[in-house]
Amino acid sequence: MAVSPFDRVLYRDLFTDSETAKLFTDSAEIRAMLLVEGALAKAQGALGLIPKAAAAAIHQASLEVQIDPGALAEATGENGVPVPALVAAFRAEIGDPEVAQYVHWGATSQDIIDTALILRLRPALARIEAETQRLLTALATQAEAHAETPMAARTYGQHATPTSFGATAAAWGRPFLTHLDRLDALRPRLLAVSLYGAAGTSAALGPRVDAVREGMAEALDLTADPDPWHSQRDRIAEFAGWLTLLTGSTAKIGEDLTLLTMSGIGEVSLGGAGASSTMPQKQNPVGPAVLTALARHCTALNGAIQSAMPHQLDRDGGAWFAEWLSLPGMVMAAAKSVSLAADLAERLSPNAETMRKNMEGAHGLIYAEALSFTLAEHMPRPEAQQKIKALCRDVEVSGGTLRDAIARDFSALDLDGALAPSAVLGQAPTLAQRFAEAVRGRRA
Amino acid sequence: MAVSPFDRVLYRDLFTDSETAKLFTDSAEIRAMLLVEGALAKAQGALGLIPKAAAAAIHQASLEVQIDPGALAEATGENGVPVPALVAAFRAEIGDPEVAQYVHWGATSQDIIDTALILRLRPALARIEAETQRLLTALATQAEAHAETPMAARTYGQHATPTSFGATAAAWGRPFLTHLDRLDALRPRLLAVSLYGAAGTSAALGPRVDAVREGMAEALDLTADPDPWHSQRDRIAEFAGWLTLLTGSTAKIGEDLTLLTMSGIGEVSLGGAGASSTMPQKQNPVGPAVLTALARHCTALNGAIQSAMPHQLDRDGGAWFAEWLSLPGMVMAAAKSVSLAADLAERLSPNAETMRKNMEGAHGLIYAEALSFTLAEHMPRPEAQQKIKALCRDVEVSGGTLRDAIARDFSALDLDGALAPSAVLGQAPTLAQRFAEAVRGRRA
Amino acid sequence: MAVSPFDRVLYRDLFTDSETAKLFTDSAEIRAMLLVEGALAKAQGALGLIPKAAAAAIHQASLEVQIDPGALAEATGENGVPVPALVAAFRAEIGDPEVAQYVHWGATSQDIIDTALILRLRPALARIEAETQRLLTALATQAEAHAETPMAARTYGQHATPTSFGATAAAWGRPFLTHLDRLDALRPRLLAVSLYGAAGTSAALGPRVDAVREGMAEALDLTADPDPWHSQRDRIAEFAGWLTLLTGSTAKIGEDLTLLTMSGIGEVSLGGAGASSTMPQKQNPVGPAVLTALARHCTALNGAIQSAMPHQLDRDGGAWFAEWLSLPGMVMAAAKSVSLAADLAERLSPNAETMRKNMEGAHGLIYAEALSFTLAEHMPRPEAQQKIKALCRDVEVSGGTLRDAIARDFSALDLDGALAPSAVLGQAPTLAQRFAEAVRGRRA
Amino acid sequence: MAVSPFDRVLYRDLFTDSETAKLFTDSAEIRAMLLVEGALAKAQGALGLIPKAAAAAIHQASLEVQIDPGALAEATGENGVPVPALVAAFRAEIGDPEVAQYVHWGATSQDIIDTALILRLRPALARIEAETQRLLTALATQAEAHAETPMAARTYGQHATPTSFGATAAAWGRPFLTHLDRLDALRPRLLAVSLYGAAGTSAALGPRVDAVREGMAEALDLTADPDPWHSQRDRIAEFAGWLTLLTGSTAKIGEDLTLLTMSGIGEVSLGGAGASSTMPQKQNPVGPAVLTALARHCTALNGAIQSAMPHQLDRDGGAWFAEWLSLPGMVMAAAKSVSLAADLAERLSPNAETMRKNMEGAHGLIYAEALSFTLAEHMPRPEAQQKIKALCRDVEVSGGTLRDAIARDFSALDLDGALAPSAVLGQAPTLAQRFAEAVRGRRA
Repeated sequence: MAVSPFDRVLYRDLFTDSETAKLFTDSAEIRAMLLVEGALAKAQGALGLIPKAAAAAIHQASLEVQIDPGALAEATGENGVPVPALVAAFRAEIGDPEVAQYVHWGATSQDIIDTALILRLRPALARIEAETQRLLTALATQAEAHAETPMAARTYGQHATPTSFGATAAAWGRPFLTHLDRLDALRPRLLAVSLYGAAGTSAALGPRVDAVREGMAEALDLTADPDPWHSQRDRIAEFAGWLTLLTGSTAKIGEDLTLLTMSGIGEVSLGGAGASSTMPQKQNPVGPAVLTALARHCTALNGAIQSAMPHQLDRDGGAWFAEWLSLPGMVMAAAKSVSLAADLAERLSPNAETMRKNMEGAHGLIYAEALSFTLAEHMPRPEAQQKIKALCRDVEVSGGTLRDAIARDFSALDLDGALAPSAVLGQAPTLAQRFAEAVRGRRA
Repeated sequence: MAVSPFDRVLYRDLFTDSETAKLFTDSAEIRAMLLVEGALAKAQGALGLIPKAAAAAIHQASLEVQIDPGALAEATGENGVPVPALVAAFRAEIGDPEVAQYVHWGATSQDIIDTALILRLRPALARIEAETQRLLTALATQAEAHAETPMAARTYGQHATPTSFGATAAAWGRPFLTHLDRLDALRPRLLAVSLYGAAGTSAALGPRVDAVREGMAEALDLTADPDPWHSQRDRIAEFAGWLTLLTGSTAKIGEDLTLLTMSGIGEVSLGGAGASSTMPQKQNPVGPAVLTALARHCTALNGAIQSAMPHQLDRDGGAWFAEWLSLPGMVMAAAKSVSLAADLAERLSPNAETMRKNMEGAHGLIYAEALSFTLAEHMPRPEAQQKIKALCRDVEVSGGTLRDAIARDFSALDLDGALAPSAVLGQAPTLAQRFAEAVRGRRA
Repeated sequence: MAVSPFDRVLYRDLFTDSETAKLFTDSAEIRAMLLVEGALAKAQGALGLIPKAAAAAIHQASLEVQIDPGALAEATGENGVPVPALVAAFRAEIGDPEVAQYVHWGATSQDIIDTALILRLRPALARIEAETQRLLTALATQAEAHAETPMAARTYGQHATPTSFGATAAAWGRPFLTHLDRLDALRPRLLAVSLYGAAGTSAALGPRVDAVREGMAEALDLTADPDPWHSQRDRIAEFAGWLTLLTGSTAKIGEDLTLLTMSGIGEVSLGGAGASSTMPQKQNPVGPAVLTALARHCTALNGAIQSAMPHQLDRDGGAWFAEWLSLPGMVMAAAKSVSLAADLAERLSPNAETMRKNMEGAHGLIYAEALSFTLAEHMPRPEAQQKIKALCRDVEVSGGTLRDAIARDFSALDLDGALAPSAVLGQAPTLAQRFAEAVRGRRA
Repeated sequence: MAVSPFDRVLYRDLFTDSETAKLFTDSAEIRAMLLVEGALAKAQGALGLIPKAAAAAIHQASLEVQIDPGALAEATGENGVPVPALVAAFRAEIGDPEVAQYVHWGATSQDIIDTALILRLRPALARIEAETQRLLTALATQAEAHAETPMAARTYGQHATPTSFGATAAAWGRPFLTHLDRLDALRPRLLAVSLYGAAGTSAALGPRVDAVREGMAEALDLTADPDPWHSQRDRIAEFAGWLTLLTGSTAKIGEDLTLLTMSGIGEVSLGGAGASSTMPQKQNPVGPAVLTALARHCTALNGAIQSAMPHQLDRDGGAWFAEWLSLPGMVMAAAKSVSLAADLAERLSPNAETMRKNMEGAHGLIYAEALSFTLAEHMPRPEAQQKIKALCRDVEVSGGTLRDAIARDFSALDLDGALAPSAVLGQAPTLAQRFAEAVRGRRA
């Protein structure tokens, strides 16, 4: 009985990355919490803080025991956290009280829940990173193939100067290279064990808590920070901010594709589009719209995570639960965004002929800046700019192209040279090529 | 395989109002869309726009047919909207092509999806309204019972002047009376049929579309607006704003209860609290924390809905899908918030003795304003204020109560009169009583 | 030394509505606070609660006294609120301690600050309402003049079916009619005096506080609510939500104008556009971009106001100050948005010829739905839809128009009738006319 | 005529960091834009792309010329950007057309505006970093001085276990060490020149644009990125996210101080507090409230920046202007937040005696976890936990302390050892000391 579009069967192909969804289910969380309890016991056993045999038995059980989420639901409703009921159920499964008593020794609920979250964020990051890499590869291929395919650059929606489709694809892609650098920087901060006991002082965990935490970290392949982050949530907020950046960049692709596929623009074909229930001709750019929507959702939820940074004192349910409600949706939105953007980037194709026609249309005004610099060889630039401005208004009223109008008034100018593709495209091909190389460099 | 806390078994007793959850499932949406298609055919049949027999058959089928969401998922992923696949599946279930062709006659996907949403928001509103009424009743009972139970009012967290617990409960409750007024104003705007055809002009619906829409509205117990709202989403955004206001007011209760139950304050008992996994003494105020968290989630999602108001032109998938992703969570958060707040309001009890002790503690400084007015009968008020200020600092250093310090210096003052409960509580009892009456008045 | 774009000389013509700006200055706030103190004394004097002569003197002084904000700045920095310093300065200006002591009798800082805010929101609302009315009038004129000017409706950016520019203008305008209704509903709630004393119980204001508050309300032309709203901020949050709705609707106009003026679309001329520093041809749609930006700013700030609803207990500086930081920018953004939208609506003109050409372009696929219904007279609708779909793909590949392709295969169809403007425009002209009448009706 | 609280005289001591404010004024922006134009000409002159003499004259003039913002306001209102008018005014000041024409050669408005912003963000970052360092130093001093000053840790507002005030100060401070690491990572990305010409291809800047950009970067002490960021705003959004993290961490301090200074808690003295206009006893924790409010403002504005990431195509006024409206307020909020937090951290003092009394109060239940581990030496831990839980309920009803109750039932336990400060404080002193060392290490 699911209500979230990420959980509903009807919308699963539209909004959900199923690889990522697996990580946020009840069974995944319970499994992760048990693994954390198991790693804690193992680390305490190895240091002789609890009996080795008990530690081994707990660790083994943590890998095998099955606990039904339904059996924990009522107590979770009362306690706010599932851990008291989980520990009780886990102890009951273990049976022997001499062993079972060492489950959760010195830990607090937040240690278990936070570490279990992190344990699942690791594969989520791996998935997002892999899909981001796929997106980069696809955009690099587009950039390289179309490095010199001219199209109109548009500023404020208006034809500005020529660019190339390859440069456009490169522009879409470049932020993701930086996003991966940012991920490399935040990953060790984020992927850390939490083990600080009841209120962050590790009192019941004993004087060797640092070693226990490191043992857990090794067992779980996470990092160990000696300082508690129970109520200092900057690493969670940093991660949420990164997901938001990521979806901001996929939404940029979505926004541009929505515009470039508009009727009357038609410069990109998506290779897959949505039908209408009543209009037979429709081929709607559904994927780009989904990118926009997912980013809006993720960006909005980021507000909840950032607003929840100021935990009250040493644990703040109102702030912590807010993370639980909002973070999964952000990860889901981000994972689907990069995956869908990669699909789109692999499938789309520029319509070079339409690009050319659009660019040349509107009286060739797109060459106005280039022509003003050519003309500036013969008069001061401000004067040249004024002259070209006047000619632009002329051709808009009387028709013809700007180039012809200039040729008429200034016959000596080398307009062929001025408007040669190599001149008007500027650095566009270089930007496209350089991006493709950077992507190859990162992969290698 | 659910990822949203609203959908997960483990957290269902913590975050989910199951009555409301039912309304946002796949089966509920499919059922609602079929009802809309049925009502459309019925209304068109009644006006002779499609054959009456076909209309009757479609209407009947719309009530009976079962369509599996899984069978629509792939096409929904392609088209962005489930309607093309739903219409095809519905027609297939009907069988007879002479009948089936009249399904969805002249309508567009958005007509069906938006109306199907509204159809489910009606019971959601009813649920929220009923739970709000339950909350009001509980708070009215508290207000009345404790209209004269003194407690410290706190501004900036500091003892200010006395108030009563009844006045506090009334303050929590009063906004909900206004929220219900606001709901009455927005309900007819929100609970409206959408039927405007492919792009809002109703062209394929024919010249009698207003009558068709009114027929549908009657059949579905909704209102009919002759003007399209496909891409003018103010009614959705208004509703989202209202949900946000509602959770803002429940979070206020949550925030106050978190403070009033703090160790060292302890003025309210919740009659139910959460256990810790490691601290045997803990009785955590879980419910108040949930109120805070749900409001944060709802408020954040409101940003997505408001940001999505500027639809591009006549339908904007990026903006519309953003509503799909964010609105259900808002309704879920609001419904649980009022329901949980009502539970808390019914169960909580003020600790009158602790309130009194807290209030009298700290040298009785809480009476400083009252005493300054008494003293002002004997000297200009600014001078009296200065005098009291000095005495406040004195007793903080030397001990004793402010009252005794004043009595020492100004023996002629009627301090008994000045500090009589009836004097120091001001309007607090009246505010409490008036609220209780207002709630009774609304119910009656 | 201003840092906000609303305050800077350089950007005043881009972002600032100067009429509204006047209301949020230091001198306007100080003036308003003095008026509130004056009205309080007057009301207390009329009821005999303070000496009549003192009341008259205070009231008179409140109209005349000039207080320098610089003289209050340091104390405001310490106290968080300007009122203690303002009251001291006001008393000093009055001089006679027998009179001066009755200034601020029984009131608290929040009473003065909140009422002084409301006093300035009244003219702000009047300004916004007047500019909204101007916007409505301009859009009504456009709607009426172009009720039958055909243009392409676009869904997902793709040609959908024909509509008219008048219907488009009407669609832009309609939400503002509802916004004014919403304003009528919230105005009396918002435009209310605050007078509840130190902690909301009116204790020092005495038993006749309701009469004092009503006297103040009468003097200030505000409403009087017997229930305190010191820490129940739903009316402020409701107002912020309304401003957000308003800018959502102006941003919709901005977004559409940005698209309709795009190179290659060019369906609307703005009658005023921005130049580039380097591209001589550029005529940038600056106004529409400003509408989008202002709405983003306002919507973001709304998050701060809504998040600040849960005040802690009886006064919460962290939440209240957050209103101070965010609300003025919202009012500024909303006022400029409606004013600028009105300017744009008055000046813009549709390019009917371009609209027609765009609509007819792309093989006339925009008529696909209409033609499918015509064809459905000769075969079941699903079959007709399939047939038209195939013909759409044909003409996209082989050229020609959909109409001709159909005429070729189905010579008996009345295509002239099917594609007559009156048929294809559907309700568009009616929607335009009805909106114009509704605007006239409201004005009358 | 300022409306923003950051710009108003009345609130300057409450909300404004005047060092930072200087950077966002009209004159600062105009100065910065001129410096950018000067550096551009200088770099182009050095490469022989424009005449050396003209370059020198432009560069010189860029340092000397004064341009009145009022003279640019009208044109800025039309063009959306101040650059066309600025360039015209700058050329007019230069006079000689042979020189003046080389101003702004090949650049676009966004190159100038974005670089001029970055040029002012550099000192803003320096200011924020210095104040963050001051905050760290103050917190390190507190942490070290009170490493072993016991206080109650509170989770969900309830006494949890003992901690120390030093550990609390360390917890407040630690995130700022990481924030400075994050700043080091983002600084070179952020502090970059923009120079990519009309639409990002550098066409009019010529083939040696990379060298020009590097020359400018050297002159302005910024970095040079060969890839355009005109419409890829991840670096701006990353910076906004960082500011938000920062204020989240200062607000955490604010929130905790608000709670720790509450009447009835009183564990921290702020050494400076706000007076009330009516309550003589009041000493309001104004600074902490300001921290909370500034963070709310900054976090809300972050939503605008993140939402504006998806620029439409190659320049998007609606998204770019949204940055202009929201970013300055974020920098202002962050700068004041760290500065005010540093002031508070320098001045505050813990009330060790109150901390001890609060902690020991409530029947000494705060030792429940510690005692349960002691008892677990004699019985399985779950049994010990149950036993202690029952004793907690006993003492709450019958009075006395938990310790005495246990001593009564289990006379053999070493309760002195169990409750020795060194035992119950756990790692708290270590955490405090380690933080102080880390701060010293960073400074060194």
